[in-house]
Amino acid sequence: MRFLSEEDSAALITEQLAYDAVRTALIAAVADDTTTFPALPAHGSRPHNRFTLKSAAASDIAGVKIGSYWPDNTTGPRHNSTILLLDQNTGRIAAVVEAAKVNAYRTAAADAVAADTLALQSASTLTIFGTGHQAYYECTALAKIRPLTTIHVVARTATHGETLVTQLTKAGLPATLTPAEEAVRAADIIVTATTARTPLFDATWVTPGTHVASMGSDAKGKQELPPALLTTADLYCDLPTQSTTIGEFQHAKTTNTITALGNVLTGKAKGRQSQDTITVFDSSGLALQDLYIATTLLAKT
Amino acid sequence: MRFLSEEDSAALITEQLAYDAVRTALIAAVADDTTTFPALPAHGSRPHNRFTLKSAAASDIAGVKIGSYWPDNTTGPRHNSTILLLDQNTGRIAAVVEAAKVNAYRTAAADAVAADTLALQSASTLTIFGTGHQAYYECTALAKIRPLTTIHVVARTATHGETLVTQLTKAGLPATLTPAEEAVRAADIIVTATTARTPLFDATWVTPGTHVASMGSDAKGKQELPPALLTTADLYCDLPTQSTTIGEFQHAKTTNTITALGNVLTGKAKGRQSQDTITVFDSSGLALQDLYIATTLLAKT
Repeated sequence: MRFLSEEDSAALITEQLAYDAVRTALIAAVADDTTTFPALPAHGSRPHNRFTLKSAAASDIAGVKIGSYWPDNTTGPRHNSTILLLDQNTGRIAAVVEAAKVNAYRTAAADAVAADTLALQSASTLTIFGTGHQAYYECTALAKIRPLTTIHVVARTATHGETLVTQLTKAGLPATLTPAEEAVRAADIIVTATTARTPLFDATWVTPGTHVASMGSDAKGKQELPPALLTTADLYCDLPTQSTTIGEFQHAKTTNTITALGNVLTGKAKGRQSQDTITVFDSSGLALQDLYIATTLLAKT
Repeated sequence: MRFLSEEDSAALITEQLAYDAVRTALIAAVADDTTTFPALPAHGSRPHNRFTLKSAAASDIAGVKIGSYWPDNTTGPRHNSTILLLDQNTGRIAAVVEAAKVNAYRTAAADAVAADTLALQSASTLTIFGTGHQAYYECTALAKIRPLTTIHVVARTATHGETLVTQLTKAGLPATLTPAEEAVRAADIIVTATTARTPLFDATWVTPGTHVASMGSDAKGKQELPPALLTTADLYCDLPTQSTTIGEFQHAKTTNTITALGNVLTGKAKGRQSQDTITVFDSSGLALQDLYIATTLLAKT
């Protein structure tokens, strides 16, 4: 069994590696011979410590990702991630990859692939909801695919927002703390990376041509976007069956057309229809993204 | 992260260690602060290669067992097992334990704990259905808890039955190949360790006082015992919610009383009611059994 520690995988991960692996995974996710199994929510001895088992099998790969959220952990990240690859000849575990930092890149990469596909080419103003660990990675990944001139940070707690603004500024990104309505009205791209259970903004604030990505909804009951937006925008996601179960589109009407991004990437489905279309991408997070990233990391060692 | 390889865990496992850990797990399984999460069936790139994710959390332990069955594997066992323990302080994977051989001991130990609790003290004749890898371990584990004078091996394929008889004889156990009806009529203890999807014998052949253990039913559609037996016998299992979902008791009537063995072990529920009662134990296989065995193995290194 091969093992990559958190230190190993953190040293190897790059935005480009994550982008390429996640793009491959999004395409594989819609292949006929791929199965993404239902995400299984579980918890630790103390039930507020949560972990989720996500598993999938594609033509060349199968395995499991264990993502954990230990809110009280003070000795390291609260979010951790471990990826297991199964040997397709024996059924034994071929590799274990610790992937907490990798997971931040992987989730941000899904956002970047979707924005690269769906956002206006001229998009230059990003609005980010959320000031947690993940928000920073979303901004840096998107800065690679569009020349951002402004990043509006919308914070529930101002001090957290200021910390993120400082972080982004240090990374050379033009960030500023902005109230929600102003930030949404100004945005070409809106990203929500929160643990919200109620909508973060008003649908009427969103201007034509905006691309919106919900990154935080990955469990029943989570909700980041106003339902009205889901009736007027064109809807895309990583995997409709999962997105409508645990993702943001659990709040979409069953009559909505929801397009898997993989089908856009391969040309089987259309992407943005016009300059004025509002596009929404829901990232529910796929095991395949983890499996392909782990495979790529292992190939580099 | 700690790692025990297949070689490490195979060198450490004993019947006594498995018995003690599984007994602890069966008791923990019925504790108020324990949750056994639904077993999740999944598969590899080729869908006939199967794996199942079983996870649980008790007051002092939480984790996942990945059990795989790769029917065409010729380079090692077709059944493999890996146990993951989560660090309760951080949510990271604390340990990975490869456990193919351990799993055979663990499953046999559940049978042994149940038979020790429910079979007649005078039980001396064992009938085993199935001639696969697991059957041997069931016999040796039961020989430790009752002084067996005869083991009847019932085989679908005679040559496989002869191989098992030879194996058992070499281990000093009094085994013989016997037709199903004769073997069932003679038995004090009947164990089924098969992949059957239809009943293996007739309920009328089972004599008063017999203890019957179904070890093989661990997925929807599997069935080893005649349904009539489930209406006349007293029913016990490792965990009713799981046994009635993926275990043998998916074929029991909803009006049947099903007792968790853990409650018998702690004295909260009654075991065998009389010398003439027929007892049935269904082992659906609990993640907690794996988690406690892994913990014990790790403590020995």
